[in-house]
Amino acid sequence: MKVNVHRAEINPIIAPEHVKPSRPDMEVIGVFNAGVSKLGDEVILLLRVAERPVPNDPEAYLTPIWRHETGALDILRIERTEDADFSDPRVIRTPYQNYLTSISHLRVARSLDGYNFRIDEKPTVLPETEYETFGIEDPRITELEDGYYITYSAISPSGIVVPLLHTRDFVSFERRGILFHPDNKDVTLFPERIGGRYYALHRPSSSHYAKPDIWIADSDDLLRWGNHRRILGVREGGWDGGRIGASAVPFRTERGWLELYHGADEDNRYAVGAVLLDAERPWQVLARSSRPIMEPEAAFERDGFFANVVFPCGALVEGDTIRLYYGAADRSVGYAELSVREVLASLEGEEA
Amino acid sequence: MKVNVHRAEINPIIAPEHVKPSRPDMEVIGVFNAGVSKLGDEVILLLRVAERPVPNDPEAYLTPIWRHETGALDILRIERTEDADFSDPRVIRTPYQNYLTSISHLRVARSLDGYNFRIDEKPTVLPETEYETFGIEDPRITELEDGYYITYSAISPSGIVVPLLHTRDFVSFERRGILFHPDNKDVTLFPERIGGRYYALHRPSSSHYAKPDIWIADSDDLLRWGNHRRILGVREGGWDGGRIGASAVPFRTERGWLELYHGADEDNRYAVGAVLLDAERPWQVLARSSRPIMEPEAAFERDGFFANVVFPCGALVEGDTIRLYYGAADRSVGYAELSVREVLASLEGEEA
Repeated sequence: MKVNVHRAEINPIIAPEHVKPSRPDMEVIGVFNAGVSKLGDEVILLLRVAERPVPNDPEAYLTPIWRHETGALDILRIERTEDADFSDPRVIRTPYQNYLTSISHLRVARSLDGYNFRIDEKPTVLPETEYETFGIEDPRITELEDGYYITYSAISPSGIVVPLLHTRDFVSFERRGILFHPDNKDVTLFPERIGGRYYALHRPSSSHYAKPDIWIADSDDLLRWGNHRRILGVREGGWDGGRIGASAVPFRTERGWLELYHGADEDNRYAVGAVLLDAERPWQVLARSSRPIMEPEAAFERDGFFANVVFPCGALVEGDTIRLYYGAADRSVGYAELSVREVLASLEGEEA
Repeated sequence: MKVNVHRAEINPIIAPEHVKPSRPDMEVIGVFNAGVSKLGDEVILLLRVAERPVPNDPEAYLTPIWRHETGALDILRIERTEDADFSDPRVIRTPYQNYLTSISHLRVARSLDGYNFRIDEKPTVLPETEYETFGIEDPRITELEDGYYITYSAISPSGIVVPLLHTRDFVSFERRGILFHPDNKDVTLFPERIGGRYYALHRPSSSHYAKPDIWIADSDDLLRWGNHRRILGVREGGWDGGRIGASAVPFRTERGWLELYHGADEDNRYAVGAVLLDAERPWQVLARSSRPIMEPEAAFERDGFFANVVFPCGALVEGDTIRLYYGAADRSVGYAELSVREVLASLEGEEA
């Protein structure tokens, strides 16, 4: 059964031109992959804002790097020589080190209606530690008993790690250490304890033997994780054959935990699928979309900084409505509504 | 100051010809990288035993794979075509999956004098779970208050993970879940709590941005780990410029925790260095060998299945004597004695 995706007419709801750069010599090239939650009456988005120095030299690429030693941004000049591979617009590959073409920070946006957002004028969370040299990306927000817990990807020459950030008000934030060692991404914390324990979906991102699959781990304190199990694999040749990862924070339904995950094919086209996990044993997969429930279709999803991407980092679920906020083409934020009932119906008859 | 390495005259103390294959159609090609501990008066080695099917076909390579679904070994035939890369004797690289050329299990050997070992006739710990399809390797043994805890590398199409094994007698063993997600290797547990917590050195093995460096993590229950910190990096161009990893279980000295680690250069030559960690804050590096304290020099270390490797997985420390058991050229087990005092002296004036 098809899942209807009702996109907002004003999409994209947030685009780079709405965001003030952190410095006058930087330009915002993307605002996307936003975590979402509610604080009182307001919808909170924690936006990933990607910036780069305003280009001024055709012979070289200017790469921004956070220097934790000095607490300042440094602009690295990489010559466009044969040694440097620029084929992926997101990454520069050089023989000894890979770099990102932009640096991301997190910024809060607030809305009463869920469509029109007031975006903070300044960065809310900037890179800070030695693990955040190349930026911080793709936050997921989970509200738990004592506040909001935010997982995100931190990139540096030490790899891609997943730190934990805690806040009660989205004004002050506290770093709580690194939860998953390199390389890992796409960590979403379940919004309640299950059988007394916390659970997280995670995605080991680099392996000599494995594909980028989805794993689950559990914890007693949110800081230390173990009991790692692989629960969902890529499907060779299919829409989710290249990589998969948890996207929205999983939410409870009458049939189990529903997770809207992203899958990319071998051509890096990112779509959204659904997976249903057992309510009490969330490491057990009950059903999984054989086809995407949402694909890059609108112009702003097909064209952008990195083409053909829909990538949710969060959703608000109100009654039967999934209010989905998603990154589009690594450039802007889109909004769409889906029906929980329709997503569950689409999974009937689907295999695990 | 130079560290004297007193190698046993009867080296290698254990070689493949001393080990009975697990099946008549298999041959033992390596017995190496052994964990070591003491049980009563006996020295216990937990050997890594690598086997492969007796070759019978020049056109193809026969790769052994453990099928957890059936509980049996399966022999996969890989044609020697252009698609398959056999340049590393340890690995076969094919477009969709890497394989190992052998499969390893763990086997106990016992000795009263520490040189002459009685080796079990049969495998002690065989691959068992879906994470052990390609074998189990490189165990480290740490004795704690309620028995022996063994970390090892488990290889499969789900990646390289580090499970925990518990035993009290080296006869019956219990698996306690996966401690570190893919890819990770070279995990050594500290032999006591520090400030109330357990600590482990670990080595994330694959990253888009990082090198294979040594990290530390802590735990309350030995099962769930967090607070990951990178503590020791490769040194570009040097003897430990390619990869590093913890080797022996760290032990307390008057100056702090002493860890004998392995480093490989860009040509995959594996040597041993020392690193001194703060007694109370083991994530703080106090000093590190600028040159190896032990290198592949003896013939059985220079030639073997994989040339130029000395690779300890354990040591017994008695007074000033480090009784080092080490894998040699991925083929056999060597024994050497070093002086704690000399190793510490060699670190004087060395930087962190």
